Amino acid sequence: MRPRLRALAFDVFGTVVDWRTSVAREAAAFFVKAGVTGIDPHVFADAWRGLYQPAMEECRSGRRPYTRLDVLNRETLDTLLAKHEVVADPASVADFAMAWRRLDPWPDAVEALTRLRARVPIVTLLNGNLALMMHLARFGGLPWDAILGAEATGVYKPLPAAYLGTAEILDIAPGELCLVAAHHSDLAAARACGLQTAYVDRPLELGGAPKPDRKAAQDWDYTAESLTELADVLEPVLS
Amino acid sequence: MRPRLRALAFDVFGTVVDWRTSVAREAAAFFVKAGVTGIDPHVFADAWRGLYQPAMEECRSGRRPYTRLDVLNRETLDTLLAKHEVVADPASVADFAMAWRRLDPWPDAVEALTRLRARVPIVTLLNGNLALMMHLARFGGLPWDAILGAEATGVYKPLPAAYLGTAEILDIAPGELCLVAAHHSDLAAARACGLQTAYVDRPLELGGAPKPDRKAAQDWDYTAESLTELADVLEPVLS
Repeated sequence: MRPRLRALAFDVFGTVVDWRTSVAREAAAFFVKAGVTGIDPHVFADAWRGLYQPAMEECRSGRRPYTRLDVLNRETLDTLLAKHEVVADPASVADFAMAWRRLDPWPDAVEALTRLRARVPIVTLLNGNLALMMHLARFGGLPWDAILGAEATGVYKPLPAAYLGTAEILDIAPGELCLVAAHHSDLAAARACGLQTAYVDRPLELGGAPKPDRKAAQDWDYTAESLTELADVLEPVLS
Repeated sequence: MRPRLRALAFDVFGTVVDWRTSVAREAAAFFVKAGVTGIDPHVFADAWRGLYQPAMEECRSGRRPYTRLDVLNRETLDTLLAKHEVVADPASVADFAMAWRRLDPWPDAVEALTRLRARVPIVTLLNGNLALMMHLARFGGLPWDAILGAEATGVYKPLPAAYLGTAEILDIAPGELCLVAAHHSDLAAARACGLQTAYVDRPLELGGAPKPDRKAAQDWDYTAESLTELADVLEPVLS
């Protein structure tokens, strides 16, 4: 018998928002403005995202103190632009670096989150910092009850303190919290901390390419093809 | 020339919600259930609130590490019940201790906050902990973009880090943030940190009794008789 669910915590990048299409759109606009040709915006988006885990790993390992994702994203963008020998005006680069605050929600997200929020509190549990997530929520109309994650706990997922600290801030037991994510590795870390787990399939997150963590798949507490289906599955559980 | 306002931060107890009427209502129900007679619920609410500043001062002074307001409220309630020799079942006391998660908004709050939120992000900057504020927001339909305050910064107002840390988390300069509060002492501390200041009069916060901090009044950047009037004043500034 699972404990009663008292809150849902959502991963965001890939699970709730389509970062790849949105970052590629911003990259395309940036390249036009900067007079850059010959760089595929989707490949650029993938490359930028590819520098995300190594940058966070510096913090997770303790080699660097917790540093906000806005800052890491700016650093990795500078690295990529230097690699491509792109020179652009500083204001354009600063604006492009904030592309992660302007990502479109997947089409099912807002309605499903609104349905679930009518039953229990819904919060974020993401590696983005608060300002990034707050602007992303305003951009896409995401109706969070609270923004939690790396900045609230001071650590990046998948460190256990990210999951346990979120439950503690919510004043509930880990087993009363369910992580919703499109990534098996994230869910595996949450389950190891005693959280309940809900997998939402997002086959288009990488444009249709296979997910690197598919071997980490487990029999999760809940599995759905979309957030709409997850709301269908959870509404009876939460009533 | 003031800097452009990029976010509004709200004090909550007394400014956005009517804690005294709501706590008295919960006290009255608790006394009936516990078979207690002869204690005026409004006097009890004032007495409970009266233990709030001394309890936080233990943390502000460094004599005690930061401790969530839910915990302090429970301790001060136990103190008061012991003083009145009230004995009640533990579940009722635990529920009553959480009365601060169930406070009615002042009648103008939700509509005015919704208007202001259409212009800039609106966040809390309160001494309540995140879970308390999240449940209070759900109870009253308060549309915050983010819940910030003591738990996010790790310190209680009016310590400077409470105000400066909030601006930092929002990734804006202190002068780009405006504190909205019904308390001169809170606004004075915010101004000392470089924040802009908006005073909202709440003459009924203490049931019509004079406010203890009225001598701290200054010529604030904005002054209004209600949150509705503040929205009227700020909308042109924020457009």
